[in-house]
Amino acid sequence: MHSEFFKQTQRYREGVAERILSFLSAEHPASLYEPMRYALQDGGKLLRPILAQVVCEAVGGDQEDVLNAAAAIEFVHVFSLVHDDIMDEDDMRRGRATVHKKWNGNAAILCGDAILIKAYEALGRTNSPHLFRALAAFNRGILDVCEGQALDMEFEDRDDVSLDEYFHMIDRKTARLFSLACEMGALLGNGSEEQIQAMRSFGMKLGRAFQIQDDLLDLLADQATLGKDVGSDMHGDKKTFLMIYTRENASAEQFSALLSSVRKERLSGAEIQNVISLLQEIGTIHAAQQQVSDALNDAGKSLRVLPESEPQKLLSNLLDMLEHRTY
Amino acid sequence: MHSEFFKQTQRYREGVAERILSFLSAEHPASLYEPMRYALQDGGKLLRPILAQVVCEAVGGDQEDVLNAAAAIEFVHVFSLVHDDIMDEDDMRRGRATVHKKWNGNAAILCGDAILIKAYEALGRTNSPHLFRALAAFNRGILDVCEGQALDMEFEDRDDVSLDEYFHMIDRKTARLFSLACEMGALLGNGSEEQIQAMRSFGMKLGRAFQIQDDLLDLLADQATLGKDVGSDMHGDKKTFLMIYTRENASAEQFSALLSSVRKERLSGAEIQNVISLLQEIGTIHAAQQQVSDALNDAGKSLRVLPESEPQKLLSNLLDMLEHRTY
Repeated sequence: MHSEFFKQTQRYREGVAERILSFLSAEHPASLYEPMRYALQDGGKLLRPILAQVVCEAVGGDQEDVLNAAAAIEFVHVFSLVHDDIMDEDDMRRGRATVHKKWNGNAAILCGDAILIKAYEALGRTNSPHLFRALAAFNRGILDVCEGQALDMEFEDRDDVSLDEYFHMIDRKTARLFSLACEMGALLGNGSEEQIQAMRSFGMKLGRAFQIQDDLLDLLADQATLGKDVGSDMHGDKKTFLMIYTRENASAEQFSALLSSVRKERLSGAEIQNVISLLQEIGTIHAAQQQVSDALNDAGKSLRVLPESEPQKLLSNLLDMLEHRTY
Repeated sequence: MHSEFFKQTQRYREGVAERILSFLSAEHPASLYEPMRYALQDGGKLLRPILAQVVCEAVGGDQEDVLNAAAAIEFVHVFSLVHDDIMDEDDMRRGRATVHKKWNGNAAILCGDAILIKAYEALGRTNSPHLFRALAAFNRGILDVCEGQALDMEFEDRDDVSLDEYFHMIDRKTARLFSLACEMGALLGNGSEEQIQAMRSFGMKLGRAFQIQDDLLDLLADQATLGKDVGSDMHGDKKTFLMIYTRENASAEQFSALLSSVRKERLSGAEIQNVISLLQEIGTIHAAQQQVSDALNDAGKSLRVLPESEPQKLLSNLLDMLEHRTY
């Protein structure tokens, strides 16, 4: 994350990290709570709960209004990572063994379940006249995330996924939680109905930009920086914007050259460069950058409902920072 | 279930079955919603949500006051079955393939997740000034269920589990959801504080009786009636009251005779009879029946806080029926 933005959001990051910890004091049974603590103390960026807090302040609320809900959003994020890692058989995340790898599949299933319950525990501590509506929005949002994950798995068995279908999936699986974070911030910060809708939309666009950028960085970044196998998305069955755009726009010759390049488990530096050159030739890299840019631009328009303020400026900075994000 | 009680509770059963269905109208993605519908339409007895409704009426509330929460309780029950069946590698439940067997492990993880979210969606529809408290009780209850499941798994690797530890586990894993159902009924039916606590305790005792009885019936009932392998608990690593009591009270000779009898995957009728005779000799069967009887007796005392009424009589009938339950 860009170091300037990292500094500017330190207070929010520390606030939610502390709040998350406050829900993890239980010790027994250790087979449940140790994996939970491990999963939640993974050095993640806490971007979603930071967004919830910044948006809350941007509509005139206090950090405390949304802090429990912000923690809840991070719990949901980590719950979905723990369960998705089992489903995707991923052994590493952010340079560490995943929960099901460090313990086992059963421990990881239960760990994810309990983290999801913790999300509701945190949300339930919210002291707000909007709790009823917040709970409904929360339920709908997390169910959308599950639907996105189901679609993602369905797509693994299909070779004809369209870009429309891809966006439908990724808007649920990834963007929805950004959107929910921003919606919670606006709702619990007592924003106007217009602000709530605009922040919900801001989060969706931001999340979409984030995901396509992730796919790009997965390809372009080096392994040490990213902490997972470079090109892992390209040689798996996972559908990404890059793959689908490429399939739809490559010549038969380009496509078969590409397929033979990514059939291996682990690509060398030269092989990765070769893949990148091919994707540039096809126009995939440019199209992905354009998608990111368009989504960030749309997100920027949603910010117009906010009065000028420090938090509003921070959201604007975030968009600039993402435009130039390299890891 | 005793046919008299089955008839007397038909209205409650139909009410909650219909309410559950109303939360399952979504169709896509089919890979998510088909397993969910399958898991939830399994011909279960719906005993927990029936209890929630009867208790609600017994403290003077209306069925509708608790109907969404009752559906939520059943969602939680089914969520835990779907995930537990993965963890325990159980292929059959109530005579049908389990979700992870009919689909696969990934589908079952996600199916359970989404059913848990549906539980909160149902609870969130509750129109009550007590929603805030209901949500907190719900969170605590389900987390207890997860703790119970974690302990159950920990115990599989241990040979020295005491009866105290066993009760600590089973009170969470099984009894807690009965307790939560009754607590919800009393809370959302506007019961007094005394009634809420008594109903919570009623559910715990009832749940404990239910579990020990299940273990007994698992041994005594025939396979066709019960729909799962007879004696499956005895030859697995699962700890039951029967196993622990037996280990603590059998002579070395009795214990090794027993162990050699249950080492096989599937026992013949004569072999099961042999196990039962051994357990009778050791005193295990009698001790288990006494535990059931004591727990039902304690549960009966908790009913004294209820005014005389049809629903109150139904709860009392339920205890009598369980005293004589054969499947």
